[in-house]
Amino acid sequence: MAVFPFTAIVGQDEMKTALLLAAVDPSIGGVLAFGDRGAGKSTAVRALAALLPPIRVVAGSPYNDDPDARDCPEADRAKAVEAPTPVVDLPLGATEDRVVGALDLERALTRGEKAFEPGLLARAHRGFLYIDEVNLLEDHLVDLLLDVAASGENVVEREGLSVRHAARFVLVGSGNPEEGELRPQLLDRFGLSVEVSTPKELAERILVVRRRDAFERDRAGFVAEWASEEASVRERILAARARLPGVEAPDAALEKAARLCLALKADGLRGELTLLRAARALAALEGAGVVTDAHVRAVAPSALRHRLRRDPLDEAGSGARVARALDEVLAA
Amino acid sequence: MAVFPFTAIVGQDEMKTALLLAAVDPSIGGVLAFGDRGAGKSTAVRALAALLPPIRVVAGSPYNDDPDARDCPEADRAKAVEAPTPVVDLPLGATEDRVVGALDLERALTRGEKAFEPGLLARAHRGFLYIDEVNLLEDHLVDLLLDVAASGENVVEREGLSVRHAARFVLVGSGNPEEGELRPQLLDRFGLSVEVSTPKELAERILVVRRRDAFERDRAGFVAEWASEEASVRERILAARARLPGVEAPDAALEKAARLCLALKADGLRGELTLLRAARALAALEGAGVVTDAHVRAVAPSALRHRLRRDPLDEAGSGARVARALDEVLAA
Amino acid sequence: MAVFPFTAIVGQDEMKTALLLAAVDPSIGGVLAFGDRGAGKSTAVRALAALLPPIRVVAGSPYNDDPDARDCPEADRAKAVEAPTPVVDLPLGATEDRVVGALDLERALTRGEKAFEPGLLARAHRGFLYIDEVNLLEDHLVDLLLDVAASGENVVEREGLSVRHAARFVLVGSGNPEEGELRPQLLDRFGLSVEVSTPKELAERILVVRRRDAFERDRAGFVAEWASEEASVRERILAARARLPGVEAPDAALEKAARLCLALKADGLRGELTLLRAARALAALEGAGVVTDAHVRAVAPSALRHRLRRDPLDEAGSGARVARALDEVLAA
Amino acid sequence: MAVFPFTAIVGQDEMKTALLLAAVDPSIGGVLAFGDRGAGKSTAVRALAALLPPIRVVAGSPYNDDPDARDCPEADRAKAVEAPTPVVDLPLGATEDRVVGALDLERALTRGEKAFEPGLLARAHRGFLYIDEVNLLEDHLVDLLLDVAASGENVVEREGLSVRHAARFVLVGSGNPEEGELRPQLLDRFGLSVEVSTPKELAERILVVRRRDAFERDRAGFVAEWASEEASVRERILAARARLPGVEAPDAALEKAARLCLALKADGLRGELTLLRAARALAALEGAGVVTDAHVRAVAPSALRHRLRRDPLDEAGSGARVARALDEVLAA
Amino acid sequence: MAVFPFTAIVGQDEMKTALLLAAVDPSIGGVLAFGDRGAGKSTAVRALAALLPPIRVVAGSPYNDDPDARDCPEADRAKAVEAPTPVVDLPLGATEDRVVGALDLERALTRGEKAFEPGLLARAHRGFLYIDEVNLLEDHLVDLLLDVAASGENVVEREGLSVRHAARFVLVGSGNPEEGELRPQLLDRFGLSVEVSTPKELAERILVVRRRDAFERDRAGFVAEWASEEASVRERILAARARLPGVEAPDAALEKAARLCLALKADGLRGELTLLRAARALAALEGAGVVTDAHVRAVAPSALRHRLRRDPLDEAGSGARVARALDEVLAA
Amino acid sequence: MAVFPFTAIVGQDEMKTALLLAAVDPSIGGVLAFGDRGAGKSTAVRALAALLPPIRVVAGSPYNDDPDARDCPEADRAKAVEAPTPVVDLPLGATEDRVVGALDLERALTRGEKAFEPGLLARAHRGFLYIDEVNLLEDHLVDLLLDVAASGENVVEREGLSVRHAARFVLVGSGNPEEGELRPQLLDRFGLSVEVSTPKELAERILVVRRRDAFERDRAGFVAEWASEEASVRERILAARARLPGVEAPDAALEKAARLCLALKADGLRGELTLLRAARALAALEGAGVVTDAHVRAVAPSALRHRLRRDPLDEAGSGARVARALDEVLAA
Repeated sequence: MAVFPFTAIVGQDEMKTALLLAAVDPSIGGVLAFGDRGAGKSTAVRALAALLPPIRVVAGSPYNDDPDARDCPEADRAKAVEAPTPVVDLPLGATEDRVVGALDLERALTRGEKAFEPGLLARAHRGFLYIDEVNLLEDHLVDLLLDVAASGENVVEREGLSVRHAARFVLVGSGNPEEGELRPQLLDRFGLSVEVSTPKELAERILVVRRRDAFERDRAGFVAEWASEEASVRERILAARARLPGVEAPDAALEKAARLCLALKADGLRGELTLLRAARALAALEGAGVVTDAHVRAVAPSALRHRLRRDPLDEAGSGARVARALDEVLAA
Repeated sequence: MAVFPFTAIVGQDEMKTALLLAAVDPSIGGVLAFGDRGAGKSTAVRALAALLPPIRVVAGSPYNDDPDARDCPEADRAKAVEAPTPVVDLPLGATEDRVVGALDLERALTRGEKAFEPGLLARAHRGFLYIDEVNLLEDHLVDLLLDVAASGENVVEREGLSVRHAARFVLVGSGNPEEGELRPQLLDRFGLSVEVSTPKELAERILVVRRRDAFERDRAGFVAEWASEEASVRERILAARARLPGVEAPDAALEKAARLCLALKADGLRGELTLLRAARALAALEGAGVVTDAHVRAVAPSALRHRLRRDPLDEAGSGARVARALDEVLAA
Repeated sequence: MAVFPFTAIVGQDEMKTALLLAAVDPSIGGVLAFGDRGAGKSTAVRALAALLPPIRVVAGSPYNDDPDARDCPEADRAKAVEAPTPVVDLPLGATEDRVVGALDLERALTRGEKAFEPGLLARAHRGFLYIDEVNLLEDHLVDLLLDVAASGENVVEREGLSVRHAARFVLVGSGNPEEGELRPQLLDRFGLSVEVSTPKELAERILVVRRRDAFERDRAGFVAEWASEEASVRERILAARARLPGVEAPDAALEKAARLCLALKADGLRGELTLLRAARALAALEGAGVVTDAHVRAVAPSALRHRLRRDPLDEAGSGARVARALDEVLAA
Repeated sequence: MAVFPFTAIVGQDEMKTALLLAAVDPSIGGVLAFGDRGAGKSTAVRALAALLPPIRVVAGSPYNDDPDARDCPEADRAKAVEAPTPVVDLPLGATEDRVVGALDLERALTRGEKAFEPGLLARAHRGFLYIDEVNLLEDHLVDLLLDVAASGENVVEREGLSVRHAARFVLVGSGNPEEGELRPQLLDRFGLSVEVSTPKELAERILVVRRRDAFERDRAGFVAEWASEEASVRERILAARARLPGVEAPDAALEKAARLCLALKADGLRGELTLLRAARALAALEGAGVVTDAHVRAVAPSALRHRLRRDPLDEAGSGARVARALDEVLAA
Repeated sequence: MAVFPFTAIVGQDEMKTALLLAAVDPSIGGVLAFGDRGAGKSTAVRALAALLPPIRVVAGSPYNDDPDARDCPEADRAKAVEAPTPVVDLPLGATEDRVVGALDLERALTRGEKAFEPGLLARAHRGFLYIDEVNLLEDHLVDLLLDVAASGENVVEREGLSVRHAARFVLVGSGNPEEGELRPQLLDRFGLSVEVSTPKELAERILVVRRRDAFERDRAGFVAEWASEEASVRERILAARARLPGVEAPDAALEKAARLCLALKADGLRGELTLLRAARALAALEGAGVVTDAHVRAVAPSALRHRLRRDPLDEAGSGARVARALDEVLAA
Repeated sequence: MAVFPFTAIVGQDEMKTALLLAAVDPSIGGVLAFGDRGAGKSTAVRALAALLPPIRVVAGSPYNDDPDARDCPEADRAKAVEAPTPVVDLPLGATEDRVVGALDLERALTRGEKAFEPGLLARAHRGFLYIDEVNLLEDHLVDLLLDVAASGENVVEREGLSVRHAARFVLVGSGNPEEGELRPQLLDRFGLSVEVSTPKELAERILVVRRRDAFERDRAGFVAEWASEEASVRERILAARARLPGVEAPDAALEKAARLCLALKADGLRGELTLLRAARALAALEGAGVVTDAHVRAVAPSALRHRLRRDPLDEAGSGARVARALDEVLAA
């Protein structure tokens, strides 16, 4: 079914940028979108799915095997086909079995063989895994997803199975802070976080409703109208991916990222690494060959906001604290 | 068994209108009826079921497939038959398996095949799904139902099954606020909400008991008496459906809807979209070609009442707050 | 085994009357007996079972099918036999499967067929279902029983089964308020409630123990002694059932019932309908052709007592409040 | 293995009498022994088992069928044999299945038949069922046991089984009030209760330890020493059973029992009936033909002590309250 | 694997004595060792296992049947072999099935027979059953073990099995009071309790570490070094077992035991019986023919310490209270 | 996939030393790493895995059998092969079955045999078992792992299986004290504990991010760069293992270890034994033949820090308390 075009989304620039960065460099580590109900979080992810360029896969592989990988058997290479970038939607009520894969009961029963039946993690390999209302998911499932997302591998040890397959995907979660907070240790494991809110301006609201209404009354027509905008963004992603390995991160940028994290007392080094990668991806997206302060400044809120400890003496919100630290450190 | 006629229901105009609007435009997104026990909530839904015009389905399809859909195979088109609009009643104690569908155990056991056995969601496609005392249902089942109702698709990922089928239905829930509130995030996902109460006027009460008693003593006779009233409402629904795509929503109406939501600080844009659709459906039902302030005003309480945040400084009930905002915004 | 005769029960008139009314008009909706342990609640229900006139059923039908029903196949009509009115005792520990019916495992295993095995609800059809200590039953089972009792149909949707059969019975529950209250929403769904207490008069107590002792020492002899009393009550029930459809409820009686409920602020209209039906059944039992104030007055405590809201400003018990309202309304 | 002789138990007269009364008239309804750990509750029950006269059963019957029952088939009568009175010990961890009986899995699996495999309740029929530490048993199992003990019938409705068989036994429970109280509604359903305590007198304690030590060092010799004492009690039980139906309970005794219960405000009439039956059994045991005040007085503490409500204004223990009431009522 | 020799354990005399007493007279009823982590509780039990003299069993019997038992079939007598005294270690996570025995699934599935597969209780028969950290075991399993230990019989009633076999063993439990107390009713059912603590003297600590280190660096050498010490203790146990039946317990000793228990207000008579048996076993171990005050005094702390009630007015620990009572009673 | 080299880890000396000590003498008993998220705990363990010298195993053995063990069958000796030291990663969500091993369902179903399928414990034998976020694991699983780690044996008693196999491995756990403390009894059972924190120095942080970034951009190149450093540490481990049995622990060192534990009031003797072993392993690693005060001092914080009781009067952290005690005792 036709989906609402990514480029037709009104506002929500922070979220759109974060999704694009993750599309350019999946190692950035997932995007968490916080905010009001009905502000279009799900719409954006579904829209990105439609926009992404296709990938090459070994036809028939339940693991989205890459025919261009070094260790791909020659026979498989011959079976290369194009497929849409997978964007797997974790449905409410999906069981752990279905997520990580499980014993293939059919074969076990009919042929007495212990075979593995891949799950959603296999299907999401090389693409996106979207969890709506991540705070409603059971903790152990979220842990598991983050674990796999971080290691790039799905390890299954149970029912006599011992399976390990690649599962590299961008995890995108959405959550409403009013429906129960995420544990800090989970927050930290998402690469970027963005805040999403309903537009407060009358004109913007009307524009949203208008586009939405136009889309729903004539989906095909609306999508056609936005096709060239979509193509242009798709091109930018492809160009950025090609440019990424050559983007340099000079010492000064690295030092500023470190100072920023120290100033914010962010735990661990994940913040620093994410900041570096996100800034590099942004540079690539903007066609730059070198990471500048401006790139660090632009991605810092998304990369660090969710890694701050509560500071009882500082009543500013985490966004404001990041902004203040940016001013101090980058001005220096 | 003969059911009490929709048109013989005494009073309860808000509920009856909301149900009719949903019958005209199912994308409005479900109706939630709050109120006293014994006020006739279930009666109204069951009555609407009997009143609705039949639909055309592919004979034998467990998914209520539409023979007039663009992607319907030619062979299926030949099997078109008329069937009553499905109104599925979620019985107390229905398991998740039975709701979303599950592995067909019979075929799995006897033929060793993994086949999907559709559940209540498939059966409710293109009709209504009624949940009495929605607050007694387990949260995860309510979530699931709202999810499917919103996306129009039922996605099942478990027991090695991976199935996806259309499931577009109007969800109608009834609840008694005294038996435990609904979570705000659930409230927001119902399109319309109505308040139902026992009539307080002596004459009205006696009329209710009289009609009910007459009905129970001679069902066939009573139904026959109301048959022409019923037919007239059925005609109105059909006419409204035909007229709906052509109903215009002028800029002024759109802006008023937006101002209303801003004035009420309703989260997200769902309120605004619902308001627009409900007003358009009402216009269609009333034979109008253009949405007017009067239509917006008429449906605003049902569309917005359940989306207000508690305002500790404003002791007025949510109904009164909507009324006040209507006066401010529509007078302007 | 011989049971203690209904007519030999000492006192307990309110309970005996309520049971007789339900025997005359099962649509009154169940009887809830509250009160002391050992006051004879179970004895009365089991005694009523022995007293009731037999019903005609299709021989071999697990659903107590009625050979005289309009839709009864001709072949079944030929198999009509007499059977005692079913009085099914819900044993402690009965599972939901056993109550509503379930997949017939034997046939599933041996013949690979999905067949339905009817449960206690099927067996209770056209009779009584007795639950001792209804407050010890799990809530969801009580909900389910009340649901079926109200709709007259048992709908089973699980394990791939989709079954629906008639299940019209009088639900009789007994409870001890000291062992945990019933939720108000459950109370409201019982038609009549009665209060049962141990006799406080010495003479009455001795009479009870004497009759009980005589019965236990020579059951057959005791039962023989009361046989003609029993037959006379059985005749009254049969006569009342025949007379019931013709009993008139004049406008004045209807209005008084409505005033009474308004005066008592009873929620919903269930109280009013029950009051009307119980008064009509009492009239039938007493051989009257018209419902009078006296009938309304006689059944009002049983029909309304359990539907009152707690009124913190009115310390009178619910019985006293009904009595006061009766004086005000019926005197008028 | 040889058990400690009933008659060699030092002291504990109240408990021994209660067990004998239940042996004479099982309809008295069970014995509950409260008290210190290690005071010999289990010993007494196991000793009574060894002392009881044998019963006649149909050989091979898993239900202890009585060949002398009126409805016993002629073929079974021919198979009459003598067997010890069953005394079934409910082992810790017995499942409900094993207690009430269950589907015979072996036959179900090997022959595809649904057959019932009787449980401990069948095996205890016509004997005793002993539960050590009844307060550690799950409530629903205690409920179930009391239910069956009261009705004399075991009704099983599950797994597609619908079985009903006689299960008349004396339920003997032991409990330590320090390990959690029994719910009042359970207390009331035991016929008699006794208090057991460790002897406080030095000489008595030494006598207990001496006899216990002598028994353990030479079981056979010790048992031989007490054989004639045991035989004499066995004779008394048989004689009392024969005499029981002829024992008269004159009006005065009945009235005193009633006055006693009224004075003690015991709920319901179970206390009164138990008092009457226990007094009659005691008379039979003592060779009397008529119940006298002395019999009533002797059994009143056991029959009533556990049925008193807590009276916050009366600090006397329940034993003392029964004694005071006895003085008032019997003196009158 | 070689285990640390019992006689090489430094200090811990109370625990070692208690274990030896239980080895001489298993009817003493189990040993409970309380105390610090790492104080060597497990080491002592495992060491005793290695030291105990072998038993004679019927070869191949899963129940450790005794070929010298009176009721042993002649055929089995011929199969007598020597085997180490069983010392069964209850592993963490052992299921109830595995402890008490269960349906032999293999035979049930392959041959359709209901056979019993004995569990750890069968294997521990005539030996020791050790539970490390008894306070971490589920209560119902502890109850079950104590029950079997007390009755000497394992009774299994479930899954259609009804099995009863001898299971006489010494239960040894270890616990750390800091990790949750044992319920008083469980404490009372252990025969002896001992307190174990880490040595506080420097020299003793060094000796422990030295011996442990020597052992771990050369197990075989260390064990050889202590072989004759071990043999000598083994001889003492055998001699004491032979002497035990002839050891006399004169009236004075019995009276002192009784006075001691009365003075300490120990509930029930278990303390008294245990005291008598432990004193007799100690006399046997020391080669004495008569129990003296010294024997009673020596075992009293182990036999009584865990049976005292908390006395809020007496702040002395239970050990001190036993010592004080010993002084009062034995001095008299 | 190439892993980050152990020697390229910046700082974190305490953790690296502890892991090396455990690699030299696995009987030290596991390492617990506490500290900030993202500080590189997992990286270090995975890096050690890559560094460790290979072991010789019997080819095809699921238990990592040692062909050089005394009791290895001749046939197996012939099958000796080299394999990497196993480093088993306990995946989140691993079931107990998969950890300890379980009934081999495939063989049970297809061949009707009860066979054991070894679990992760078998696979970790003679290597390392790593648990990330040990505080998120269920308590009973942690207990079980520590139990096996301590005894060196995995004992499985369930489902009719009774299996025992060697399972000697170093348990490495990581935990974040902010996500819930470990129970003291678990802490004590880890041999060593280390504290890990994010570097606070700017230069160090930049160095970490630089190396990490270099590694991720060119894994093979980075690993090649560090190869000789890695080889040199591998040699040191092998040399230390060879030297370990000959390292002497003079009386003075033993006494100082004992005084240290007494001064710190560490419970039990585990601390003392661990201290001795760790000091000896450190001496071996450093090429010394005799344990000196310096070795004791160096390992004391890791060996004792987690065994201190909370002392409410001493606010110093456990690290500071160990340091103080070291000064007092070693200065003496």
